[in-house]
Amino acid sequence: MRGYAQGKNDYLQRLRRIEGQVRGLQRMVEEDVYCIDVLTQVSAATAALRTVAVSLLDDHLSQCVSGAIEEGGSVADDKLREASEAISRLVRS
Amino acid sequence: MRGYAQGKNDYLQRLRRIEGQVRGLQRMVEEDVYCIDVLTQVSAATAALRTVAVSLLDDHLSQCVSGAIEEGGSVADDKLREASEAISRLVRS
Amino acid sequence: MRGYAQGKNDYLQRLRRIEGQVRGLQRMVEEDVYCIDVLTQVSAATAALRTVAVSLLDDHLSQCVSGAIEEGGSVADDKLREASEAISRLVRS
Amino acid sequence: MRGYAQGKNDYLQRLRRIEGQVRGLQRMVEEDVYCIDVLTQVSAATAALRTVAVSLLDDHLSQCVSGAIEEGGSVADDKLREASEAISRLVRS
Repeated sequence: MRGYAQGKNDYLQRLRRIEGQVRGLQRMVEEDVYCIDVLTQVSAATAALRTVAVSLLDDHLSQCVSGAIEEGGSVADDKLREASEAISRLVRS
Repeated sequence: MRGYAQGKNDYLQRLRRIEGQVRGLQRMVEEDVYCIDVLTQVSAATAALRTVAVSLLDDHLSQCVSGAIEEGGSVADDKLREASEAISRLVRS
Repeated sequence: MRGYAQGKNDYLQRLRRIEGQVRGLQRMVEEDVYCIDVLTQVSAATAALRTVAVSLLDDHLSQCVSGAIEEGGSVADDKLREASEAISRLVRS
Repeated sequence: MRGYAQGKNDYLQRLRRIEGQVRGLQRMVEEDVYCIDVLTQVSAATAALRTVAVSLLDDHLSQCVSGAIEEGGSVADDKLREASEAISRLVRS
């Protein structure tokens, strides 16, 4: 069981929509759509991926990290360090 | 002819790779892969989209905007304003 | 006691350095320094602020949120929701 | 004369306000203000710096880069390459 288990279908739906956006981008490039319109669509797909990332992180904190802290011990510290690194990667991506 | 015309095949290849990453993300969620590993892959796809956006903007500036400025007149101003708005959207996405 | 208590002096030092960077930016603008060089310095200050934010979030998770989860109850949920909102704001800033 | 010459006073005012925000952050840390409130203020200062960066880039494109393109030659190419690198740094900061 993962932190995102409860929202699994929702995540799959959002990822399929993002896949559609990226396929749409290929079509736009193939059809020589104006650069700025392609860029607007790239920004939309990027923002959608960011939203997925923030949701995954929320679920991870409230399920996995929270669970590890309740159990206590060194696992909790490891989970927190791991989550911090993921946040750092996310902020910089 | 668009600013990205010369690199069209390269863009298509990069976008297909990103599409593959997003499909990979769906598989990861379906197979209950650990949240942090999903997140790492989301960050990778986001960074790849950003790189595409920066390249598209480069091409747009050096081709379309540059061409409009050489021609002069109000079109140049419009192109610059449009490019600025795209940069602003990109920075915030 | 706050999550950042142990690193307080380090945070103050980093913030003073960022304050110095922002004052440096004013001097650059006053002395008509070349736009791109001003921009490079703005990016440096932004990156320094981001690093402070990620550290503060780390400390907050490993101290405050962690403590609330150990105690359990609705406070833990509130802390987690609050942290998620802060991450979301940070990612979008 | 720089691209930001006309808005110089406005830039100085915005930078002084950001300096004030960063000094405010030091006071918050000294007075042990709650982490999340400090973080909110860090996000506000980061967003303000980003807005300054986007404005500087706008001015640079519409003044310096535009001027170089009108003059033509290799200087225009250099300016465009330089602007692209600044955008790339900005997006990643």
